[in-house]
Amino acid sequence: MASSHELASLTLTSDELREHWQGHRRLTRRVIAAFPEHDLFHFSVGGMRPFAELALEMELMAAGGMQGLATRTWPSRDEAAGRTKNTATKDDLLKLWDSTTYQIDSAWPQIPPGRFEETDKAFGMWEGKVYAFLLYWIDNEIHHRGQGYVYLRSLGVDPPPFYDRQ
Amino acid sequence: MASSHELASLTLTSDELREHWQGHRRLTRRVIAAFPEHDLFHFSVGGMRPFAELALEMELMAAGGMQGLATRTWPSRDEAAGRTKNTATKDDLLKLWDSTTYQIDSAWPQIPPGRFEETDKAFGMWEGKVYAFLLYWIDNEIHHRGQGYVYLRSLGVDPPPFYDRQ
Repeated sequence: MASSHELASLTLTSDELREHWQGHRRLTRRVIAAFPEHDLFHFSVGGMRPFAELALEMELMAAGGMQGLATRTWPSRDEAAGRTKNTATKDDLLKLWDSTTYQIDSAWPQIPPGRFEETDKAFGMWEGKVYAFLLYWIDNEIHHRGQGYVYLRSLGVDPPPFYDRQ
Repeated sequence: MASSHELASLTLTSDELREHWQGHRRLTRRVIAAFPEHDLFHFSVGGMRPFAELALEMELMAAGGMQGLATRTWPSRDEAAGRTKNTATKDDLLKLWDSTTYQIDSAWPQIPPGRFEETDKAFGMWEGKVYAFLLYWIDNEIHHRGQGYVYLRSLGVDPPPFYDRQ
């Protein structure tokens, strides 16, 4: 009945937030690994992009984004895309993925306290709250990974369980 | 070089967190609305469930979940599924969706402060942190909605833009 009682906010520790992101990245890695080599780069449904292209989009957001989070200096989207250019095999893609996983773990403790509540311009293009950028990258990864599940099912391959983030 | 400097945690206000969820729900509503009536209940790719079934899964998690968040009393999954039973048309589904949107907005201020950091057993079955339940429902919605995008593209229907949450 109080008109201004206390509302439930959500606080995630630095570790919980990194673990939420990395748990999703571990699952996406298993989805990449589940694709037959050729299909990863060529198979699609409904005229959409092959899964390797979707994964490279996630990859440039994650690696370039991590730099912006930690240093407040953003690469342009073209600069971030640069390092994904020579990705021609599943092994290339998994190595790139693993290098970004390592980069996230290494740079994460350098994110300045209060950084997630700042307003900034991601990749020099999108203005908003920094926490919303990170949630967007994760959401975009889940969105496209879900599309990868349809590709795998269409190929007769069982995708990894969605709930497993270990 | 300090070995225990302060790390960046993330705090979302009650409004920011509800808005994050409801923004995703607004987008999912547009995906439901974009389906041709028959295809919503019958079309699928790769032997997966039609989009109406995926949306009803999101729906029971959201409505039953909101009850658990606010009251600490969980319906069973069967109880939560009960109210989705007589959903036979797109209009039925959209009305159910809208009633849950209203329920979330109404019950949200009743979530006890500190609730998201508690440990609980969602739907009497899954033990974990309460914040992780909510993130899981949102992630599950994004995952299945991404699959709906593939269905729509396969049907020749342009899906609504992913980035628009208004």
